Amino acid sequence: MLKREAEAADRIFHALADANRRAMIERLTRGPATVSELATLLGVTVAATVQHLRVLQDSELVRSEKVGRVRTCQIDTAGLRNAEAWLRRQRAAWEQRLDRLGAVLDDQSKESGS
Amino acid sequence: MLKREAEAADRIFHALADANRRAMIERLTRGPATVSELATLLGVTVAATVQHLRVLQDSELVRSEKVGRVRTCQIDTAGLRNAEAWLRRQRAAWEQRLDRLGAVLDDQSKESGS
Repeated sequence: MLKREAEAADRIFHALADANRRAMIERLTRGPATVSELATLLGVTVAATVQHLRVLQDSELVRSEKVGRVRTCQIDTAGLRNAEAWLRRQRAAWEQRLDRLGAVLDDQSKESGS
Repeated sequence: MLKREAEAADRIFHALADANRRAMIERLTRGPATVSELATLLGVTVAATVQHLRVLQDSELVRSEKVGRVRTCQIDTAGLRNAEAWLRRQRAAWEQRLDRLGAVLDDQSKESGS
């Protein structure tokens, strides 16, 4: 289970580590788009866009559906939520540590003041 | 400027796309640790840990300082904040879109009800 979660996180962060894939996500948060529209936006070939789409789909950041000859993509919030949750946990742990350090410093200043 | 930001985001997400590097960050949010301590935690060599450390430092996720022969690492919040900010922007854009869709549906149901 933990291994599966780690592998999912690997995939999500790997998918996000590319400016073109982030640009696709930024576009799709504003609404669905076809593969051709995304290719035009990025200024790359449809084949390259399909490759990026595959990476984004594998990490649950984007979903797509083909109707006739047109494949339409939309955001899949599962991946974004997972990535954000991991980062939020790190910040919470870090802030708890700062709070504890602050409490220790408070106690010390009270002791030296008494 | 935008290109520099994109390159920074590439580096941060690439750094996070590795379970060992994420484990180092998880450990360091709870307080500083030496390279040897991190190597023991991960069950890898000191040399491998130093490689991971370099990637984490390049993306401003971790800082380190060498005193005598001991290198101590601590969290650098700049990288985590950057990654979280990008994800938060995507969620905000997505939620705005849902709000707009909700408003359109509300209007439609009012119109059909009148």
